[in-house]
Amino acid sequence: TRKHTIAVIPGDGIGKEVMPEGMRVLEKAASLFGFDIDQKWHDFASCDYYTRHGKMMPDNWKEEIGRPDAIFFGAVGWPDTVPDHVSLWGSLLQFRREYDQYVNLRPVRLMPGVPCPLAGREPGDIDFWVVRENTEGEYSSVGGIMFPGTEREIVIQETVMTRVGVDRILRFAFDLAQKRPNKHLTSATKSNGIAITMPYWDQRVEAMGEQYPDVRRDKYHIDILTAQFVLNPDRFDVVVGSNLFGDILSDLGPACTGTIGVAPSANINPEGIHPSLFEPVHGSAPDIAGQNIANPVGQIWSAAMMLDHLGETEAAAAIMRAVEQVLATPSARTSDLKGAASTQDCGKAIADAL
Amino acid sequence: TRKHTIAVIPGDGIGKEVMPEGMRVLEKAASLFGFDIDQKWHDFASCDYYTRHGKMMPDNWKEEIGRPDAIFFGAVGWPDTVPDHVSLWGSLLQFRREYDQYVNLRPVRLMPGVPCPLAGREPGDIDFWVVRENTEGEYSSVGGIMFPGTEREIVIQETVMTRVGVDRILRFAFDLAQKRPNKHLTSATKSNGIAITMPYWDQRVEAMGEQYPDVRRDKYHIDILTAQFVLNPDRFDVVVGSNLFGDILSDLGPACTGTIGVAPSANINPEGIHPSLFEPVHGSAPDIAGQNIANPVGQIWSAAMMLDHLGETEAAAAIMRAVEQVLATPSARTSDLKGAASTQDCGKAIADAL
Ligand SMILES: CC(C)[C@H](C(=O)O)[C@@H](O)C(=O)O
Ligand SMILES: CC(C)[C@H](C(=O)O)[C@@H](O)C(=O)O
Repeated sequence: TRKHTIAVIPGDGIGKEVMPEGMRVLEKAASLFGFDIDQKWHDFASCDYYTRHGKMMPDNWKEEIGRPDAIFFGAVGWPDTVPDHVSLWGSLLQFRREYDQYVNLRPVRLMPGVPCPLAGREPGDIDFWVVRENTEGEYSSVGGIMFPGTEREIVIQETVMTRVGVDRILRFAFDLAQKRPNKHLTSATKSNGIAITMPYWDQRVEAMGEQYPDVRRDKYHIDILTAQFVLNPDRFDVVVGSNLFGDILSDLGPACTGTIGVAPSANINPEGIHPSLFEPVHGSAPDIAGQNIANPVGQIWSAAMMLDHLGETEAAAAIMRAVEQVLATPSARTSDLKGAASTQDCGKAIADAL
Repeated sequence: TRKHTIAVIPGDGIGKEVMPEGMRVLEKAASLFGFDIDQKWHDFASCDYYTRHGKMMPDNWKEEIGRPDAIFFGAVGWPDTVPDHVSLWGSLLQFRREYDQYVNLRPVRLMPGVPCPLAGREPGDIDFWVVRENTEGEYSSVGGIMFPGTEREIVIQETVMTRVGVDRILRFAFDLAQKRPNKHLTSATKSNGIAITMPYWDQRVEAMGEQYPDVRRDKYHIDILTAQFVLNPDRFDVVVGSNLFGDILSDLGPACTGTIGVAPSANINPEGIHPSLFEPVHGSAPDIAGQNIANPVGQIWSAAMMLDHLGETEAAAAIMRAVEQVLATPSARTSDLKGAASTQDCGKAIADAL
C-alpha cells in the first residue's frame, strides 16, 4: 500500500485541540482509501517548548523532522509567554524559508452552512484562490534602529523583492489561472504609494502576462482591492500578492465568506525538494484556547489540501464532501458557527460523514 | 465677515467633475452662515499639467498656493498618461509631506440610503474613525535596485518610522479616542511578521497608552483586523494605523459601509503651521470619468470636514444633514447608489437641501 510520512506539529493553543481532529479525519481517510499514514509528532515549534528550552525549536530540527512527505501544522503563538515575532520567526516563518515553501495557497470559498457576513451571497457565488508569495517581500528581518531610546529614534525595515522570488510566484499564479475556467488573474499592488518595490512587481506581472496571452489580467491597489473583496467578491478567480498583501487578502477573503475558522492553507515548495506544510489560516487563538470549542474545519480542510498534494485526490475530495455535509448540519457545528458542538464532536461528525 | 481662503485643486478625471459640486455646496453654506470664501483655482497637480509641462507642478508651487486657510483637493492620477507613482509622488504625497499633514483622518460611518454590503447592519451601527499616519512609514522613496535587468535583480525599499512620527500620530489618535463616548482605541499592527518596525510601533502604543489610562486599547494584526472590519465593524471607535495600514483600512471601512464614493478625508497639520488638505477618499476613476455620473458626496463631505477644521462647525453640521437627507432620497442619488441622478443633480440637491 501507498505510504505517506507526515510530520505532525500541533504548536500552541487551539493548534493542540484541532490537530487531533485533523488526524482523526486523515486516519479515517487512509483506512477508507487504502493508504498508510506514518506519523511522527513533534512538540517543538511551540511556546511551551520555548519555555522549557529557551528557543522555539532544537538546533537539529531539520534532522528531527527528517524527510517527511508533508508537514501537518496546527498554530503557533502564545504572546503572554513569547512575543509573537519571536515565536513566529523561530518556527513557522523559518519553515517557510528554510524549506523554500514559496507558494502560500489559500482558497476563498463560500461554503454551505457558514453564515456569510455579506448580504445576498450564496454558496457558489464566491470561489477563488489567493496565491501569496511566502518567503520574501515585506517579511524581512533586515533593518534596525538608530538612536535607540532617544527622541531621535529612527527605525528602518527593508522590504526585499528579487526577480527570482517574484517571477516564480507569478508563474505559479498564472499557471493556476490558466487551469481555471475563467482564466482570470488579479494582481495586488500599491505602486502609487510604495514607489520602488511595487512598480517592480507590476512590471514583472506585465512581463509574465505576455507569456500567458489566454489569461485575462488586471491589477488593483491593495486599498481598493480590499474594498472590492467586500463589494464584488464574485469578480475574482486567482488573486496574487506579495507576502504582506497575500497575508491580508487571505484573512479578509475567508472573513467575507463567513469565518477564518474554516480556512485552510498550503505552504508549498512546488519543486518537491523540500516538504510542503499544511495549516489552518487561523492562529493559536489564546482567547478561546482550552475550552474545547475551536472549530476544527480549518485543520481538516488543510488535511484535504495535503492529501491533494500527495496525490490522494479522491480521499481529498471525499473529505471536502464530508466537510460540506457537516457544515450544512446545524447541530454538528461549533459555536463560532452558532452551533453547540465541541471541537471533538465536529471532528467526529466529519470522520463519520466520510 | 469671516473670510476663509481656499486653494482649489480639482486634479484629474472625476476630480474635475466633483469639485464644482463641492464648491457649489461650500458657497451656498457661506451665504447661509455668513462667511466668505476666497477661492483660488489651480490647474497643476494634475496629469494634464504634466502633459503640458513635463512635471506635475510648477517649481514655485508653494508660492502659487500661497498661505490659504485650507486646500480643497479633488483627485489625481491618469495612468494612461503618467504612471501613478509619478503623478502621486509629484502632487498629493508631496503636499502631505511638505505641508507636514501628518494626520489623515477618515470617518467610517454607515449613512442612511447607502446600501450596505454587510448583512443586517443599519445606519448607526457602524461609526468610527480611521487615523492614519500620513508622512512616513511604508510610503518611502528610499531604496533601489541591484543588478537591474538581470536574473539576479534585487529590489529594496525601506520602511522608515521615527519616534517623532509615530508618537505624534498616536497622540492625535488617543486624544480623539478620549473625546469619544466609548474611549476605545484599536491599533493596527503586524508585529508577528514585520519584525522590526511593527514591534516598535506596538511599544510606542503601549508607552503612549500609559498616558491615557481612561482609554481602553487593543491591537490586531492587520490581516485579522481587515477580517474584523467585515465581521464586527460595530466593535471599533478609533483605529490608528501606519501609512499603509491606514490607507488599506480607510478604503475597506468605507466599502463595508457601502461605497468609497461618499467617503471624505482630512490631511491635517494639527499645529496649523501649514495648510491642511481635504479630499475625497476615492481616486480620479478613469473608468467613469467624463460621464457626469461620479458621486459628488465624497467631495461635499470633505467640504464639511474642511469647514469643521476652519471653525465653521454649524455650517459643517448643516452640510452633513443635507447630505444625509439627499442620500435618503432615491431619486437624488447617483448611479453607484442605484439612482439616476447626474453629478450635478446630486450636488444641486444637496445645496438645495441646505
Ligand atoms: C493615491 C494614493 C497614493 C493614495 C494613498 O495611498 O495614500 C490614496 O489611496 C489615498 O488613500 O489617499
Ligand atoms: C502568524 C503570522 C506570522 C502568519 C503570517 O503573517 O504569515 C499568519 O498570519 C499567516 O497568515 O500564516
